[in-house]
Amino acid sequence: MKYAFAKRVRHLQSSAVRDILKIVNQGDVISFAGGLPDDELFPTRAITDAFSRALAKGNKALQYGETEGYRPLREVIIERMQKKAITGFTADDVLLTTGSQQAIDLFARVMISPGDVILTEEPTYLAALQVFQSYEARIIPVKCDEDGMVMADLQDKIKQYKPKMMYVVPTFSNPSGRVWTLERRIDLVKIIHKYHVLVFEDDPYGDIQFTGEGYTPIAALDKGSHVLYTSTFSKTAVPALRTGWIVGPYQIIRMMAQAKQANDLHSNSLAHQALFELCTHFDLDGHIDSIRSVYAKRKTAMVESLTRAKEEGEIHFVEPKGGMFLWLETKPMLNMEALLPRAVEKGIAYVPGAPFFAGKPMQNTLRLNFTHATEEQIQVGMELLTSMFREVNKESVLLK
Amino acid sequence: MKYAFAKRVRHLQSSAVRDILKIVNQGDVISFAGGLPDDELFPTRAITDAFSRALAKGNKALQYGETEGYRPLREVIIERMQKKAITGFTADDVLLTTGSQQAIDLFARVMISPGDVILTEEPTYLAALQVFQSYEARIIPVKCDEDGMVMADLQDKIKQYKPKMMYVVPTFSNPSGRVWTLERRIDLVKIIHKYHVLVFEDDPYGDIQFTGEGYTPIAALDKGSHVLYTSTFSKTAVPALRTGWIVGPYQIIRMMAQAKQANDLHSNSLAHQALFELCTHFDLDGHIDSIRSVYAKRKTAMVESLTRAKEEGEIHFVEPKGGMFLWLETKPMLNMEALLPRAVEKGIAYVPGAPFFAGKPMQNTLRLNFTHATEEQIQVGMELLTSMFREVNKESVLLK
Repeated sequence: MKYAFAKRVRHLQSSAVRDILKIVNQGDVISFAGGLPDDELFPTRAITDAFSRALAKGNKALQYGETEGYRPLREVIIERMQKKAITGFTADDVLLTTGSQQAIDLFARVMISPGDVILTEEPTYLAALQVFQSYEARIIPVKCDEDGMVMADLQDKIKQYKPKMMYVVPTFSNPSGRVWTLERRIDLVKIIHKYHVLVFEDDPYGDIQFTGEGYTPIAALDKGSHVLYTSTFSKTAVPALRTGWIVGPYQIIRMMAQAKQANDLHSNSLAHQALFELCTHFDLDGHIDSIRSVYAKRKTAMVESLTRAKEEGEIHFVEPKGGMFLWLETKPMLNMEALLPRAVEKGIAYVPGAPFFAGKPMQNTLRLNFTHATEEQIQVGMELLTSMFREVNKESVLLK
Repeated sequence: MKYAFAKRVRHLQSSAVRDILKIVNQGDVISFAGGLPDDELFPTRAITDAFSRALAKGNKALQYGETEGYRPLREVIIERMQKKAITGFTADDVLLTTGSQQAIDLFARVMISPGDVILTEEPTYLAALQVFQSYEARIIPVKCDEDGMVMADLQDKIKQYKPKMMYVVPTFSNPSGRVWTLERRIDLVKIIHKYHVLVFEDDPYGDIQFTGEGYTPIAALDKGSHVLYTSTFSKTAVPALRTGWIVGPYQIIRMMAQAKQANDLHSNSLAHQALFELCTHFDLDGHIDSIRSVYAKRKTAMVESLTRAKEEGEIHFVEPKGGMFLWLETKPMLNMEALLPRAVEKGIAYVPGAPFFAGKPMQNTLRLNFTHATEEQIQVGMELLTSMFREVNKESVLLK
């Protein structure tokens, strides 16, 4: 039987890249493709204890819960938000989600009618683009430089397109690894207040900072009216519990909770209870410090392994100050999607950059994850990658 | 700031009923409103053991998982489906979801374009109606009697409306508690094969059967092409783990998995691993037998407590053969939504029947849950409820 799918999902198709990367995960290849934290660093003992404590509270721990999620965990999150200067919210203004991915999806679901305009960075998070496409939004990328979005272009595009919302990952972006300056953040908030544009601030990586003080979230500069802030325990605790959260104006959170009721009723409330126990009986911030220092070393190993190629002009990149990703630009004639099978044959994998573009893709870009491989694997892998660039350039194979 | 929500959620609003029931859950009222299993019966010890075993497997248990869900659990589900005569599928044809609610939502998301017609029973599951409305489907109810859908009306409506799909809860329906005869199931499959209509068979309650052999799922009568079957561990194990599944034609399951990637990436994979351990180290079927017998006694207590009022013509109902709900029809002039505050004042709560109707609602209906209250509470509660009916009838208050 031939099935007639809904219009909103007809853009979904299994990509060649995904199929290659699926094979990679089964094989003997050093992968820099995924966005995985290192499971060697997981606080499994503490999580086991947390589940024991949650389950010891008796049968009620396993009953249906509130759609908004386990309230004591929402209260802990409010405290953690206050430490980031995101204030003026209560547990009522927090919705727990199945990973922060669901926060993006529910927000789009309650906000986006077909044809509504969403402004994004360029490049931006691939799976957010997929969500927005599935709600038939019109996605308009705004120019970015090393300090964040370019404000002049933002203003022009707000005037031209009258966007419903903006989606930004201002701190250690996926995929670019970049961070907005405070000045840009302040300017952004002025602009969105002036033009009444909602901002969805996606911050899964903000805690993974390698040096200095934390960056001020955009939500901390708003007055609780225009910015929604989402983050997750996936990168700082563990991914399997699929617990993210979103905090923002109550009216919107309330509408998202109603949409969540239709979507999945509520997320896994035992996981919420275990995370509450983890946050109250375990030094999560100390743990974050320790993973930060491991990831910082791996980032340094990656940067050092790429330095020669950078100096020789084979590649360009900005050293990440945090997060999980390094974004590479190669010589303009290279097509990193076309080169992926060759890289896999050599023994490494990456994600080609093109799908992260809402506008015209730069085919000569790629995203490298530095948190899942060891320093040694990173050194071996970057040697393989840069040697491939040299070979291809020598061959003068114009793959574009 | 006033927020402009998407068109698809403008029908969502906090209902008076929901607000009342929220208060009920905090107070000293016997509630027959929720669809809750009895937490006293939860196999908490076995679930604690299952988590211990899952977590003892090491850190990888806490890493990101497949969108489709933990494969060994999908294999266990395939075995359980085979015992229900749902055959011809492999683990590839199963998607694990955050409760079966998410299966309904993802199915609608990949199938329903605005204006597409969905046929449903009348009355039918409220939260499914909410999902279909949110995708702007046109919902057409089909006439039902005590044996299931009326096939003549179904054929007429298929011819008239050319529906994209049907949504049915053929075994111990929510809210009506009714069950389709085998004959109706066989006839339905003939009709959908003839007219090429997809059927979404929602079966959360099928295992909670009070007497005799299990009913043959509609999916067991299909040849794997037209019927998708969904169920959940929420009623048979525990709700908090939010684990449901859907099995059906691979093309559709595949598309739903892609939609799930955008929705929440994947469900809680530690819960999947724990449920796998539970299914392989615990006698889940024996446990289901034991909850069945408790719920059967409660159903009997409810039926007996209502017998006098039925004989006196105050109410009408069909005795449920399984599931969690009893559906009451009162005298035509009663409006059960308007009477809810009065019932709550007396000390009981129920869900008014009107929101379960896709077409013209019968205001004189209500849904009673018999699985969460004890037999004593049921006796007290039904006495309060029927005395209210008598009072109201005496007062001749025409609330309609």
